[in-house]
Amino acid sequence: MIYMDNVAGTKPDKRVVEKMLPFIEEKYGNPSAHFYPLGRESFEAIEEAREHVASLINAKSDNIVFTSCGTESNNLAIKGVAFNSEYEGKKHIIISEIEHYSVQNTALKLTNLGFEVTKLKVDETGLVSLEDLRNAIREDTLLVSIMHANPEIGTIQDIEKIGEICKEKGVLFHVDAVASCGHVEVDVEKFKCDLLSIASQNFYGPKGVAALFIRDGVKLTPLFDGGFQERGYRSGSENVPAIVGMGEAARIAKEEMHIYAPKMIQLRKKLWDGLAKMFDFLHFTGHPEQRLPGHVSFWIEYIEGESLLLSYSLKGVAAASGSACSSNILAEDEDELEASHVLTAVGVPNDICAGSLTFSMSKYNEEKDVDYVLEITPAIVNRLCEMSPYYNKK
Amino acid sequence: MIYMDNVAGTKPDKRVVEKMLPFIEEKYGNPSAHFYPLGRESFEAIEEAREHVASLINAKSDNIVFTSCGTESNNLAIKGVAFNSEYEGKKHIIISEIEHYSVQNTALKLTNLGFEVTKLKVDETGLVSLEDLRNAIREDTLLVSIMHANPEIGTIQDIEKIGEICKEKGVLFHVDAVASCGHVEVDVEKFKCDLLSIASQNFYGPKGVAALFIRDGVKLTPLFDGGFQERGYRSGSENVPAIVGMGEAARIAKEEMHIYAPKMIQLRKKLWDGLAKMFDFLHFTGHPEQRLPGHVSFWIEYIEGESLLLSYSLKGVAAASGSACSSNILAEDEDELEASHVLTAVGVPNDICAGSLTFSMSKYNEEKDVDYVLEITPAIVNRLCEMSPYYNKK
Repeated sequence: MIYMDNVAGTKPDKRVVEKMLPFIEEKYGNPSAHFYPLGRESFEAIEEAREHVASLINAKSDNIVFTSCGTESNNLAIKGVAFNSEYEGKKHIIISEIEHYSVQNTALKLTNLGFEVTKLKVDETGLVSLEDLRNAIREDTLLVSIMHANPEIGTIQDIEKIGEICKEKGVLFHVDAVASCGHVEVDVEKFKCDLLSIASQNFYGPKGVAALFIRDGVKLTPLFDGGFQERGYRSGSENVPAIVGMGEAARIAKEEMHIYAPKMIQLRKKLWDGLAKMFDFLHFTGHPEQRLPGHVSFWIEYIEGESLLLSYSLKGVAAASGSACSSNILAEDEDELEASHVLTAVGVPNDICAGSLTFSMSKYNEEKDVDYVLEITPAIVNRLCEMSPYYNKK
Repeated sequence: MIYMDNVAGTKPDKRVVEKMLPFIEEKYGNPSAHFYPLGRESFEAIEEAREHVASLINAKSDNIVFTSCGTESNNLAIKGVAFNSEYEGKKHIIISEIEHYSVQNTALKLTNLGFEVTKLKVDETGLVSLEDLRNAIREDTLLVSIMHANPEIGTIQDIEKIGEICKEKGVLFHVDAVASCGHVEVDVEKFKCDLLSIASQNFYGPKGVAALFIRDGVKLTPLFDGGFQERGYRSGSENVPAIVGMGEAARIAKEEMHIYAPKMIQLRKKLWDGLAKMFDFLHFTGHPEQRLPGHVSFWIEYIEGESLLLSYSLKGVAAASGSACSSNILAEDEDELEASHVLTAVGVPNDICAGSLTFSMSKYNEEKDVDYVLEITPAIVNRLCEMSPYYNKK
């Protein structure tokens, strides 16, 4: 199988797995149990992991809180400040139209609780307009939450400039860096952000763990009340093996990203150029250069996304149509096939939004994977075009 | 090392670890990605685990939602109904004085949001009075949340009778069964509960995963908004390996509990009787019979809990003073050593609450472990007594 759905989760690095195993099997101590070695060992392992995670995003380890997934980090960031009495009276939140469901739906929930949400439009490459952002910030704006990279269309925002505007205007700034961290530079100082979410499974770490960077001075109301783990920001027994794995994944990403990222960009260019030559009715989505290293996304006129996905899958290639979450919704309720909000936002016609495809490569992909995808694509597309009532009407 | 702190987390069963490993290393698909085998495999593995977890507590698998820890399950249960518009106007919640921090502090949070919380007292064995419960239920009572077994003093509540009263009075009933599940029978039908929390790491499963049973018809507002995983009750990418491990742990517990639980009761009796003979200033806590199988807890006059813990640790025995969370608070802020709310509730004098000790055994403990603990105890206690200013005043 050729795996090109890395935005839905990466294959864990072997070194990550090795580092985790002792904590799954023999080092099962609860880190809160400081009074015996097994507990202390878990505690120390978590703190070591925290250092690595902090280092990856140029933060202090004291500012890292471990959570269970990117969705939790995003919820904690946004609801955390929205529900905190420190910011009472600030009832306006700004997001973009192409945020992840965990930001979109959290913002939606908040509108039911008296908050007002402005969704910034993006241009056809998926970029937020800095001018629009500047104009949208009001006296009562609490928070701007903009993602670094979009997993569906690959676009990377001008996040440093967005951070500058937020700092200048004195509003809190949250960055969802789940799709980007470990693939391109993520630096909380350069981003000038107050909150930043990353998820282990998106950079060769294990599932079940993520983190939230919380800058000193930011006041956050926790989602969980309990035993005050993670300095009270995230009560609950720690997922030690997963945290240890995330730490190792962060260490590896920091040390090796400069090696694998350029390789992934090469693969992206090859796949992009190969596809571009094939069909004049294939349209790339997202920004042509300012995008995730291994990420190629497009839609094809006349063809449904599900059929495309299935055809590739039958040939041993795993890809995505839209985000993993979006796929999930489609699968659960097929009668209500919805156009992806991201694709709609970048101007893809509604009726063919389901036709989009995302190939997201990892450091494990090789040139022969791209060759294979390019080799099988014409037959897949031609066959689906022939079956398409729209294509035949052409 | 002799590990007797199983209320803080159990050693995962080897079969659990084996079942998890492929999902950590090679089967890394996102369960939301239904279109290719790697994703479907993860999806199916989760559903199989759900069946096992449901079966362990006599529930339907549709009523099981996976979360990241017991604290999350308890928060989701209580806040979930408290914040749901279905129950608007019901602003009264009943808990007991000896609930876990995740219930206590969630209730406390809700009092700041206009809820009223009644904390039922317990008798000196740790039991809630059914009469008190009945009298406490009001017209506007939304929820009763009572734990099945207390990890600190081992007492098991008359949970079926509590369930009957709640059903009769028409109030929702949540059971925190984190400490009991996998050790004694937990049956959502017998308990007549609407919500029930269990955690994998407490019954030989992995860390980082827990579950909440939600009875049909109960309306719950999720803590996380996002991609609608777990039917919307718990958005966020699933922790597949941990869920798979929890499923296997549930399967094993259901099949083998009747073998290991009686063995643990024998060990408990031996430890209890041995300690009882040694000192007249050693006082057991919790109920003498109606308690967790492998659980022995007590306090010793004149002696501080930390000193006891450390002494046992130096002799290779891992135990707990109070709950893991309580230990955590102590360690984080030693100036504010607080008496455990559980011990205070069962009438242990405040100034010596820190002197309590909990030995919680697992299916892996053997008679020789108990023999060893009994062997080293007199020297430990005598030494600490000699050092104690209180003892010498006697």
